[in-house]
Amino acid sequence: MNVSFPKNLLAESLGLLERVIPSRSSSPLLTYLGMALSPEALTLFGSNGEVDLEVRLPADTQGEGRFLIPAQPFFQLVRSLPGDLVELALGTELELASGSFRTRLSLASTEGYPDLLFPEAGTPSEDYPLQTALPAEELSRALAHVRYAASNEEYRAIFRGVQLEFSPRALRAVASDGYRLALYELPRPQPFARKAVVPARSLDEVVRVLRGTGEGEVVLALGPGTLGLALGREGKGRLRLAVKLMEGEFPDYERVIPKEFPLQAVLEVEPFREALRRVSVLADRHNHRVDLLFQEGRALLSAEGDYGKGQEEVPVRLEGTPLAVAYNARYLLEALGPLAGQAALLLSGPTSPSLVRPLGEEGYRAVVVPLRV
Amino acid sequence: MNVSFPKNLLAESLGLLERVIPSRSSSPLLTYLGMALSPEALTLFGSNGEVDLEVRLPADTQGEGRFLIPAQPFFQLVRSLPGDLVELALGTELELASGSFRTRLSLASTEGYPDLLFPEAGTPSEDYPLQTALPAEELSRALAHVRYAASNEEYRAIFRGVQLEFSPRALRAVASDGYRLALYELPRPQPFARKAVVPARSLDEVVRVLRGTGEGEVVLALGPGTLGLALGREGKGRLRLAVKLMEGEFPDYERVIPKEFPLQAVLEVEPFREALRRVSVLADRHNHRVDLLFQEGRALLSAEGDYGKGQEEVPVRLEGTPLAVAYNARYLLEALGPLAGQAALLLSGPTSPSLVRPLGEEGYRAVVVPLRV
Repeated sequence: MNVSFPKNLLAESLGLLERVIPSRSSSPLLTYLGMALSPEALTLFGSNGEVDLEVRLPADTQGEGRFLIPAQPFFQLVRSLPGDLVELALGTELELASGSFRTRLSLASTEGYPDLLFPEAGTPSEDYPLQTALPAEELSRALAHVRYAASNEEYRAIFRGVQLEFSPRALRAVASDGYRLALYELPRPQPFARKAVVPARSLDEVVRVLRGTGEGEVVLALGPGTLGLALGREGKGRLRLAVKLMEGEFPDYERVIPKEFPLQAVLEVEPFREALRRVSVLADRHNHRVDLLFQEGRALLSAEGDYGKGQEEVPVRLEGTPLAVAYNARYLLEALGPLAGQAALLLSGPTSPSLVRPLGEEGYRAVVVPLRV
Repeated sequence: MNVSFPKNLLAESLGLLERVIPSRSSSPLLTYLGMALSPEALTLFGSNGEVDLEVRLPADTQGEGRFLIPAQPFFQLVRSLPGDLVELALGTELELASGSFRTRLSLASTEGYPDLLFPEAGTPSEDYPLQTALPAEELSRALAHVRYAASNEEYRAIFRGVQLEFSPRALRAVASDGYRLALYELPRPQPFARKAVVPARSLDEVVRVLRGTGEGEVVLALGPGTLGLALGREGKGRLRLAVKLMEGEFPDYERVIPKEFPLQAVLEVEPFREALRRVSVLADRHNHRVDLLFQEGRALLSAEGDYGKGQEEVPVRLEGTPLAVAYNARYLLEALGPLAGQAALLLSGPTSPSLVRPLGEEGYRAVVVPLRV
């Protein structure tokens, strides 16, 4: 077959695959880029064993076949090609020409390469019996808001994932490391009720792909042990992902979310976060403790550690009983991380969990547990 | 004492010290920032044991004294202060105030901290008997052109340095790893003849400081085992550096610089480098070999390795006998690295050293040895 693509389209598609396909792997075949020819498309695919990605480029290829090429040199080459157009010719090798540059790349057979199973949008199958759809931007926003709260520890491995909760009421994303929790709820009724825990590192790839494709709808499909995603890219062909799920689900977390709040503090996120960051430089290097004293329209932030002590006052709008509380500054900073504008810090007591939520947007909630004073 | 500085001036000065002062060190005192008060200035200083740096901020301090503070938290704090002004008050602790932020930082005594010896511009001393001066921009250009050729290997340690050659004819910077060589000659007669080898990593810090200070003159001073630098910053006070020299000097390298060239190829640096980089993706992963065939107004670049083969033609202006030659692509790419516009590749033969030099600028020369065909 002979087929040509605009260099930018090919480079952009490969850019998505480049972060999924590992440059080294204990399964060397995973370092290859897959190419599948059908009469109407060239389909590029790759996998890191956890996340499979497929990019379909519509083209008049007049051919059929599947093969592998070493991914890294191909990525490097296409990125730097001199011409606006890339011509590919497939024989026993892959010939690539662009401007005055010519190359012949050795091909490998797909024998031994794992079967990648992607969902067919609109057509539930045995592999993906459950399907739903929503705007890609909403999904990526929900995931990006909660990602930080996932754990990096081996201990309680389930917390290294983000739990997606499909229910007739909403789609919710939740992450926790056992010490704090973040959730984002999209008020979109789902056609099935199911929980699925996706490794946080895999979700990073999903969010990156979703963001790279802009607006449009994403189909989410659940199968045994797998979350599938399919999305169109205007004029650029379809993208599909298959992500391995973790086994199990989160323990019941609803009971740690406080419901009653003797004190509510409304604050400007940016200046509050900046002050908290400054004061936390002086905090104890182990527990990162910053004390907050709320009274008379202000929060007094203070910390003391080996280096000395620091303090700063920030104006806040208070409702309720003046209160003193202390947090691990990192947890509070991260809880405020996805926010801008105004937010409310809702205190259930000096040692019981606090809630952070944005004033404008309704979907996000973060739970931070104070340090014992 | 009480003294205040514009936040930006203080932050910029600390920014220079931040890359020198290590965040961890086997000599823990080196992780501290030094402050010296005199009636007309606050002088900040730091060292990593190889490079000492001092920044003098003119100020009406009404005090005297020297002390240390933990550098990292101070850097972090000053960078993020809320006010335009930073007020410092020195008692048993250092009080810092800016906007609504206040902190007290513990001080440490300078006991045990190394004596830093800087040159006095215009006043040769026992520590720095030899002095010269030149535009800071020229020195930083010379060093930046040759830096890449220095070695990273333990073997033949002298090549981990850049040799500065002061002579009545010129100031020259030379670097080599034994396989290739780069030199940059500034046609400025020097008041003394001396060679000094400066560790390449220390020079990286010097170049960064020189670049951060813009135009103006730099005083270079040589003492036993030390290169000193002093430069003014308009309206911002003086900077001084002291850099430990390496022992010994380079072996005679003049004899490897070829003098006669059967073939001269004049090329456009940018497109030639791009083509070389593309073709080299296909090169053998061990020797990075790219073949160059020069004939009839063009260079044909080709490479072949495990992935396949690639080739590209680049127009060049040839004078002399057509010739085929092969290089380690990385060495040739790095030799062309500091250049733009047009350059000449001068071939002394298919296996004897080649010379790279820019067409416009006279100071730079690079020697690259071809691979045996």
